[in-house]
Amino acid sequence: MRWKCTLAYDGTDYEGWQAQPSGNTIQDFLERRLGTLFRKRVVIHGSGRTDSGVHARGQVFHFDGEWRHGAEALLQALRTGYPDSIQVYRAEGVEDDFHARYSATGKRYVYQFFEGYADPFDTRYFWSTGNRRLDTERMNVAAGFLEGRHDFASFTANPRDEREDNPVRELRRLTVERNGPRLRLLAEADGFLFRMVRSLAGCLFDVGIGKLDPSDVVEIRDKRERTNFVQTAPPQGLFLERVWYG
Amino acid sequence: MRWKCTLAYDGTDYEGWQAQPSGNTIQDFLERRLGTLFRKRVVIHGSGRTDSGVHARGQVFHFDGEWRHGAEALLQALRTGYPDSIQVYRAEGVEDDFHARYSATGKRYVYQFFEGYADPFDTRYFWSTGNRRLDTERMNVAAGFLEGRHDFASFTANPRDEREDNPVRELRRLTVERNGPRLRLLAEADGFLFRMVRSLAGCLFDVGIGKLDPSDVVEIRDKRERTNFVQTAPPQGLFLERVWYG
Repeated sequence: MRWKCTLAYDGTDYEGWQAQPSGNTIQDFLERRLGTLFRKRVVIHGSGRTDSGVHARGQVFHFDGEWRHGAEALLQALRTGYPDSIQVYRAEGVEDDFHARYSATGKRYVYQFFEGYADPFDTRYFWSTGNRRLDTERMNVAAGFLEGRHDFASFTANPRDEREDNPVRELRRLTVERNGPRLRLLAEADGFLFRMVRSLAGCLFDVGIGKLDPSDVVEIRDKRERTNFVQTAPPQGLFLERVWYG
Repeated sequence: MRWKCTLAYDGTDYEGWQAQPSGNTIQDFLERRLGTLFRKRVVIHGSGRTDSGVHARGQVFHFDGEWRHGAEALLQALRTGYPDSIQVYRAEGVEDDFHARYSATGKRYVYQFFEGYADPFDTRYFWSTGNRRLDTERMNVAAGFLEGRHDFASFTANPRDEREDNPVRELRRLTVERNGPRLRLLAEADGFLFRMVRSLAGCLFDVGIGKLDPSDVVEIRDKRERTNFVQTAPPQGLFLERVWYG
């Protein structure tokens, strides 16, 4: 039987999603818990990897396992057994052809900026600008140039990685919203390249502080090659919000 | 010259305020930083200790040191040199008779409850009730019985500690406010006994879930002795918000 689970995590203290020899990743914690529960090795498949320090409010994974007690009891069992920074909050039985990664039709990420010095409770979840101001109007003009179907090779860290041999993605939405000193960059696409959201966030940050013009972003995009004009924003501002299926 | 500093910290990863042999306390980090800055050992005096895992948005300390570059430059220097979970955000010169602890005339604490299962970002800062509901009206009736000038020996963990030989305090305000699943208990007093806010929070929690009646709280208070009817709420929900002087 195949199960689809949805979870949230604070990635600060983990070495990312993907299993590592250290054992200190989200996948490692989940697989250890499932191993105890099912009394055998269980391999899980995530919708995608998140980097070290990146958070999730709606990551999805699937696994196969025989369970006779229903989805509600499985969820109760999966609520416990790891640190509080990992929380599985949904579990449902799915068809055998469901795959957390290959069945996904879209994803939403949020990147959070803090204008000024974030307090110790925000600093885990925001990129602080210090004394620099961000012009959200300029950022949204630049973001508008990136929406749509484009080759995003300029905005990925490993453009020649075999995983990314087709760097064309449909960026359905890229907008910046301000709430006082807190800014949220919302990014929705059919899929994202490696470090793509953090590269978009780093580039829009430079537009926001005036280092780049919005029109520069068109040039960068059309170069279809990663250059030093694009910086990668730090991981703590990034949240995987949602994965869409079907 | 005497300096008064105000800071915020996320206490999750520290062994409380007070210096310890481990070196992993807020005081230890601040004194190491000041030692580097002033090139000699500097001892700081906090407005009071916070327990392991307790947070602060407005803790105050003072210290003596010769500094010729003004308060603004001191603040800039004190902004850096520790983990992001400690943030000094104010520094001002004060009279030589100012004392962070003995000059304080009042304090405000907040205790945060989450009704349900807090997500991984809230769980560091809230006490989650799981499947239990909290009746805020009942909690506020009970809180009203505790406001005013009382002997609070029933609500301290160490009633015979020499520090607490006078357990009478004036609780100026004790109220519970709800914002969706998030509840904030606000406590203001001329001073607090050891673990007093967490004991009040634990007791009001039991009133909220129906284990105690509001009138039971009067009986507990008048006993003037700690009993098993009062549980101590866990540390992660507690914030030292503000210290008043003069």
